[in-house]
Amino acid sequence: MTLKMTRDDLTAFMASHFPQVEGDFTIEDLTATGIKVRMHVSDRNLRPGGTVSGPSMFALADVSIYLAVLSMVGPEALAVTTNCSIDFMRKPEAGADLISEARILKLGRALAVGDVLIFSEGEEKPVARAGLTYSIPSK
Amino acid sequence: MTLKMTRDDLTAFMASHFPQVEGDFTIEDLTATGIKVRMHVSDRNLRPGGTVSGPSMFALADVSIYLAVLSMVGPEALAVTTNCSIDFMRKPEAGADLISEARILKLGRALAVGDVLIFSEGEEKPVARAGLTYSIPSK
Amino acid sequence: MTLKMTRDDLTAFMASHFPQVEGDFTIEDLTATGIKVRMHVSDRNLRPGGTVSGPSMFALADVSIYLAVLSMVGPEALAVTTNCSIDFMRKPEAGADLISEARILKLGRALAVGDVLIFSEGEEKPVARAGLTYSIPSK
Amino acid sequence: MTLKMTRDDLTAFMASHFPQVEGDFTIEDLTATGIKVRMHVSDRNLRPGGTVSGPSMFALADVSIYLAVLSMVGPEALAVTTNCSIDFMRKPEAGADLISEARILKLGRALAVGDVLIFSEGEEKPVARAGLTYSIPSK
Repeated sequence: MTLKMTRDDLTAFMASHFPQVEGDFTIEDLTATGIKVRMHVSDRNLRPGGTVSGPSMFALADVSIYLAVLSMVGPEALAVTTNCSIDFMRKPEAGADLISEARILKLGRALAVGDVLIFSEGEEKPVARAGLTYSIPSK
Repeated sequence: MTLKMTRDDLTAFMASHFPQVEGDFTIEDLTATGIKVRMHVSDRNLRPGGTVSGPSMFALADVSIYLAVLSMVGPEALAVTTNCSIDFMRKPEAGADLISEARILKLGRALAVGDVLIFSEGEEKPVARAGLTYSIPSK
Repeated sequence: MTLKMTRDDLTAFMASHFPQVEGDFTIEDLTATGIKVRMHVSDRNLRPGGTVSGPSMFALADVSIYLAVLSMVGPEALAVTTNCSIDFMRKPEAGADLISEARILKLGRALAVGDVLIFSEGEEKPVARAGLTYSIPSK
Repeated sequence: MTLKMTRDDLTAFMASHFPQVEGDFTIEDLTATGIKVRMHVSDRNLRPGGTVSGPSMFALADVSIYLAVLSMVGPEALAVTTNCSIDFMRKPEAGADLISEARILKLGRALAVGDVLIFSEGEEKPVARAGLTYSIPSK
């Protein structure tokens, strides 16, 4: 399918609609079926021992699927997360950014479903995986 | 069962171990099987329209089960979240704190399982529900 | 709210629409917000050691929420499960029926969300818990 | 890593330990990181309209991860499912077998985590996806 938003479109959309998280995320790659997003890890994402917090990993999974859905349906659709199931598998590396690899498995009229692997940058084994469902309101 | 930590113990533990989130959460109630936690909603928890972000609700669910487990096993056990499945059901009220009601359904040697309802303060219907699993390392 | 189907309506609906599972389930109780369903455990639900299989517990969780949704929206709506997250917490008792206690937490126009505790009959602690989402097609 | 059980080992193990489901599943492929399992769809897996039931898809996801874990840890370890989160995305084709593609994302000392895509044979888009956690008892 043809994407309705480019990487630059998505970045601009984020900056204007979600100023609270501006600067936290960078889109590394965008394809017809998926997206790769970097989370710039800063002090407020950390927990004792330098590891990245669970809510931060959740936020990265959530924003990744959100952006992938948005790229397919366009900026007018205000998709909202309805479900996320996330498995935390390994402790993220201290001081490393997190990288997500997300793909959309279903884009229906009402629901979109995707899944995500999250890696500490440079590591081969994922620190977390998640499946998410977004509701796409009818226009 | 007899709890190993009181509400004051838990509050002090949070302040010393998780300074990043100090002031975000207040334990409203603690019983032998569950806990009630308030999240003080501030600007950085908000999204367009004044609604509370998904990662903030995830953080409240996570901290609630964490504190409930801690109250039962004591401060030496470094429990970590292994899974969370969360359903976002309604838009939180703008300007209202969030209140969790969490209960522990299983406290095993290796795993603890609990579930949580999250409410906008003063509302009857929950905005989110979550089930979480914590891994309890053997000593 | 007023229910659109009684316990007898639901039982008759199950018998005519799901003959494959007729006799497996009995509705024990039905209220305005929830349902209690018995699974009659038979040999084909069992695993080595006499314990009930995971798919059987999943089936009980699924049918419980399905019937509770149906009681609220009526028989014409062909709701379908879109997500289930289930935690298996204890081994079910050999030779005991399973009893579910399910409640609907949200009944929206497009989605219904509920959760379920599953017990071996006569036991106080649940063997499983699940959260489920059903999609309700627009008419 | 070197697998501790071959495809034939797994098939023989299933036949002797799970006679209730013998004949339901065939291992199509087994690699160092994943497995492909066929579910032979029969009448008792079906629902009105010829579609495969949710519990049947759950059963395929569950057995797929179970066999993949078993191939890595060997037959003496009695792994049990602790969590499954499954998304039902499309209606399976009537009359077609289901094929799973499962991979193990983490094999720890105490927990294994994997995920699964399920397809109607011959179709490109998955009918379901699931993430599962297995507990591996210490010897």
